[in-house]
Amino acid sequence: MVVVVKPDVPQDKIEHLVKWLEEKQIIVRTFQGQQQCVLGLIGDTNNIDSGMLRSLDIVESVGKLTEPFKAVNRKIHPDDTVIPAPDGKPLIGGGHFAMIAGPCSVESREQITLVAKKVKEAGATMLRGGAFKPRTSPYDFQGLGQEGLDLLLEAKKATGLPIVTELMDLRDIDRFEQVDVIQIGARNTQNYDLLKEIGKLPNTILLKRGLAGTINELLMSAEYIMASGNENVILCERGIRTYEFAHTRNTLDLSAVPILKKLTHLPVVVDPSHGTGRVDLVPSMSYAAAAAGADGIMVEVHNDPACALCDGPQSLTPEQFTEMAAKVFKIREAIQ
Amino acid sequence: MVVVVKPDVPQDKIEHLVKWLEEKQIIVRTFQGQQQCVLGLIGDTNNIDSGMLRSLDIVESVGKLTEPFKAVNRKIHPDDTVIPAPDGKPLIGGGHFAMIAGPCSVESREQITLVAKKVKEAGATMLRGGAFKPRTSPYDFQGLGQEGLDLLLEAKKATGLPIVTELMDLRDIDRFEQVDVIQIGARNTQNYDLLKEIGKLPNTILLKRGLAGTINELLMSAEYIMASGNENVILCERGIRTYEFAHTRNTLDLSAVPILKKLTHLPVVVDPSHGTGRVDLVPSMSYAAAAAGADGIMVEVHNDPACALCDGPQSLTPEQFTEMAAKVFKIREAIQ
Amino acid sequence: MVVVVKPDVPQDKIEHLVKWLEEKQIIVRTFQGQQQCVLGLIGDTNNIDSGMLRSLDIVESVGKLTEPFKAVNRKIHPDDTVIPAPDGKPLIGGGHFAMIAGPCSVESREQITLVAKKVKEAGATMLRGGAFKPRTSPYDFQGLGQEGLDLLLEAKKATGLPIVTELMDLRDIDRFEQVDVIQIGARNTQNYDLLKEIGKLPNTILLKRGLAGTINELLMSAEYIMASGNENVILCERGIRTYEFAHTRNTLDLSAVPILKKLTHLPVVVDPSHGTGRVDLVPSMSYAAAAAGADGIMVEVHNDPACALCDGPQSLTPEQFTEMAAKVFKIREAIQ
Amino acid sequence: MVVVVKPDVPQDKIEHLVKWLEEKQIIVRTFQGQQQCVLGLIGDTNNIDSGMLRSLDIVESVGKLTEPFKAVNRKIHPDDTVIPAPDGKPLIGGGHFAMIAGPCSVESREQITLVAKKVKEAGATMLRGGAFKPRTSPYDFQGLGQEGLDLLLEAKKATGLPIVTELMDLRDIDRFEQVDVIQIGARNTQNYDLLKEIGKLPNTILLKRGLAGTINELLMSAEYIMASGNENVILCERGIRTYEFAHTRNTLDLSAVPILKKLTHLPVVVDPSHGTGRVDLVPSMSYAAAAAGADGIMVEVHNDPACALCDGPQSLTPEQFTEMAAKVFKIREAIQ
Repeated sequence: MVVVVKPDVPQDKIEHLVKWLEEKQIIVRTFQGQQQCVLGLIGDTNNIDSGMLRSLDIVESVGKLTEPFKAVNRKIHPDDTVIPAPDGKPLIGGGHFAMIAGPCSVESREQITLVAKKVKEAGATMLRGGAFKPRTSPYDFQGLGQEGLDLLLEAKKATGLPIVTELMDLRDIDRFEQVDVIQIGARNTQNYDLLKEIGKLPNTILLKRGLAGTINELLMSAEYIMASGNENVILCERGIRTYEFAHTRNTLDLSAVPILKKLTHLPVVVDPSHGTGRVDLVPSMSYAAAAAGADGIMVEVHNDPACALCDGPQSLTPEQFTEMAAKVFKIREAIQ
Repeated sequence: MVVVVKPDVPQDKIEHLVKWLEEKQIIVRTFQGQQQCVLGLIGDTNNIDSGMLRSLDIVESVGKLTEPFKAVNRKIHPDDTVIPAPDGKPLIGGGHFAMIAGPCSVESREQITLVAKKVKEAGATMLRGGAFKPRTSPYDFQGLGQEGLDLLLEAKKATGLPIVTELMDLRDIDRFEQVDVIQIGARNTQNYDLLKEIGKLPNTILLKRGLAGTINELLMSAEYIMASGNENVILCERGIRTYEFAHTRNTLDLSAVPILKKLTHLPVVVDPSHGTGRVDLVPSMSYAAAAAGADGIMVEVHNDPACALCDGPQSLTPEQFTEMAAKVFKIREAIQ
Repeated sequence: MVVVVKPDVPQDKIEHLVKWLEEKQIIVRTFQGQQQCVLGLIGDTNNIDSGMLRSLDIVESVGKLTEPFKAVNRKIHPDDTVIPAPDGKPLIGGGHFAMIAGPCSVESREQITLVAKKVKEAGATMLRGGAFKPRTSPYDFQGLGQEGLDLLLEAKKATGLPIVTELMDLRDIDRFEQVDVIQIGARNTQNYDLLKEIGKLPNTILLKRGLAGTINELLMSAEYIMASGNENVILCERGIRTYEFAHTRNTLDLSAVPILKKLTHLPVVVDPSHGTGRVDLVPSMSYAAAAAGADGIMVEVHNDPACALCDGPQSLTPEQFTEMAAKVFKIREAIQ
Repeated sequence: MVVVVKPDVPQDKIEHLVKWLEEKQIIVRTFQGQQQCVLGLIGDTNNIDSGMLRSLDIVESVGKLTEPFKAVNRKIHPDDTVIPAPDGKPLIGGGHFAMIAGPCSVESREQITLVAKKVKEAGATMLRGGAFKPRTSPYDFQGLGQEGLDLLLEAKKATGLPIVTELMDLRDIDRFEQVDVIQIGARNTQNYDLLKEIGKLPNTILLKRGLAGTINELLMSAEYIMASGNENVILCERGIRTYEFAHTRNTLDLSAVPILKKLTHLPVVVDPSHGTGRVDLVPSMSYAAAAAGADGIMVEVHNDPACALCDGPQSLTPEQFTEMAAKVFKIREAIQ
């Protein structure tokens, strides 16, 4: 249920209503906008008389919340969520575009520091890099682990860029304390126990759409995180599995961007590197993502793509990234 | 096989080589660029000695043409194909962007003329409208038929806009003589007998990707048309069938745009109306298509979408189209 | 709308009602079962007062026909359709299992006659073979054409087996007069003009599911044929396009069998040769099809698969077919 | 690499070769069949001289192991794996068919005990039931948890049926000590950290194919489990995600059964309940699975499907299961 409160209702009256609802085992999510307060009622609302609510003098209107996703629903949070950076400035959302770049895997101090500096110069706002890697084969390189995390934190210190890196195992959570944005990969999008745990953290979460996940499943996984208390969730479109495999690893679903922007207040980024698996398609798909209204893009950049330990063929060089970033910013202006 | 001729070789020497190859049952496609001539050899080239060709003094290099698509292959036609309008000016391709707009179905003289004028004012370069409609049910409205064609031709006369309309039955070909661009719909993309017939026509062909067609199948269907002699083919991405159906009718595959542009010299347009099935997604997907490098977009515009006889919910109003077109042109500039 | 007539109502009373409905522009399909008569009302039934119909003393009940498919709907034709062979005996349906076998393409008199004899000995009830072949490339072997048809008819004469062969171009219809079962291939499942034409023929039609066609689309295409007057339609599951391509050409959707059997009275056959593209999977998928309740299977058999001009790797040898057929018949017994 | 040892080579000679290979950092998997011993060499075999191996007098042949899956590969384990029950008798594999039945969720002592007795009488060989449930919504019933496990163990004691139940969170592993078969659900198929942990357990693992997982991914996930030491893995086909959603929740991919049986020695079961999502399709798809060569089926049975807390519409009644099981056994005989 969605309860829109009349303008200029004093705070204590709202709180009184919220308390009354909570006594009825309803979870109430309060959205306080500039002019308006909206209450999202989650749980078994069958016992709540909507007519009675509607008749209250502080209530403007009462609507249904038919979607299975509640906390992430734009209906109960009409404004865009703006996620803050560690320094308090906006990191992403509400018109703040995030340019996330870096190598697939952290490989060495030289590599990650060099790439971090280069992408920062080109306009990147966050540094990505994998320390724990989900690999299809148990015999493949599984990432540098703790050492990779340490190197990322060094690169963060050197450049000031907030870092994004993937968490796979909930037993590793303590290691991620200083990681600004914890990524949940496409293979763990529906690992609900992991989602519940990261929902208790203060870190921002970047949640990837499942390998062949639906838009609704992505929203429900974000709901798991928010239901555990974490409000800072970024959604990431990264390509879906289709019958078209001759030319691309995945089919990037850019229509997911405007669809998600309608359904949820959470920011949406696009990962064209994994979304296509081909570096030559990354620039045009980045332009398209920006034109489609994404709140950010996340791309792989490597100083020496040919020698990357992982996903080399889909990584841009720093030079290619620099050129691409400039055009992305131009497109952002064009659609304003 | 691809034979690149040295610069400044006299025409008669090239013709001599072509004749020699044709005597060996090879189909030779000659591409004459500004500086360079390229010969595409199609057919059973097993009997052609590539080493001998390479040793000829007029030949610069000899390469393989491993793809199953030959005439449409950019390897034997490095420059973009520019398709001319009836007045001889460029219609589409090589940097000339096509803005194709109009109703799903032609419904009346008033409707089609009104929409034609409105979209022309907003910058449309072609008028689309269906006279013969492929409908899933035999009991549904199947289009105005000949009357619809006549009305389209009137609207063409009134506005000067070249027209695009769908042909389904090869017995109707004679009726389409004055149609500038004949559309082959997604259900007929692999109707090979139809493709062979339209391959003999002088009209331009707009070939839609199949309902769940691959990129390679689209190229092979274009090959059927070109193999019959028609060089003026426009390819159209119109969404593919995936498991994601809760929010869209199809998944628009925008990565197909840069992929096709690499593989073929033919122009590529995007149809976000059918590609998503939702009018509210058409603008952002049109921006994305332009940003991805499409040579044109094709959208449904109806003066009264709520009352359209077919596909109403995916049609823009003329006002929405006008606003959208302006942004599309801006994005075109941004990526130049 | 579905009108169930009371038992033992005299024929003239039913005809009177039918005439009255037809005057209101309703198409009435009359199903006369052993005990019961059912009328299927197709068209704009908004003007028909269902309460009035229900109150007629010859009417037992009136129901809705909400599905878009009407004539093919089991609701208005509760019994299985049994399609007769040229000799009047049952060919398929209502418990009569069809074993359709033969080469992908007719290649020579020796080949088709030899295969025909072998498969007949093993229990085949129909002979398949392609004369006109839909090929992805315009440069590939397109079938023997008229010669292929003639050879098939010879093999029919020699063995007495009814023949199944594909029609692609409606201009060829006259050539197919003596073909018992005309196949419409997966690329033409939604070639509506072709469907309308074959709907006027007396031949039985075997309609394949589209390359990536839905069950509903298959039913609607069958509806096109029946709406033109042809009642003898066999539906064919032949695999659908999915993301799983590493091991099979298509994913055979066997759940389509029981689903179709519920929705329609038309017989359903399965083509595991095209459905998997791998000869080693054909036996187990044939067993599974029979166990799932299919009315028949259609498999490729070639005397020399390694040298087949088309689809060799998915063809069984006559010996393999013989062994397989025996097991299929055993499974049929097991599920009775 | 696959090294086939000559017949009758004494054990100590084989062990000597294995030790030599292990010193070169190669993981050696030894398969000891009735007549023959096969060594599977996993790891970086670039430094192993295959010519030298071939020349050894105890070696019959040396082959490549090109597939990314090694331990699960039938090439290095030609015989079917037979997994033992707690009592040492065969549970599944090598011709031993497993009939796994039970409710989606354990709901109460009465329910699980009643269902367990009924399915045992009908021929079930294992009891399934969910205690920890992966639910799309955080607000839905998440299973009885520990209490559910306890009730399952009681039902096991009462009937003697080994039990199958899902583990989601690796922190729960200790609770599963007495669970005969631990199920890994479709959402966790690529939760590699979970796979590594269960790979250290003595319990049998039933690994479901991912929601839209490929056959190769399923094999690689099984490889993770075997690479950690657990040899008792059952693979489960449970339907894949396709564009066909109007009639079924998933498309059951039965061709996966013969494909997997060729590629791996591990037993393969089919879950038609989740694979279709419709109880009326479960019998025919169970028959088809048995006919396709599955080593077992797993179906949902509930004493009162209409009131089931979860997945009611896809559960059989005990009576329906009894009838179905009898036919499944008949089909097993027919294909022998």
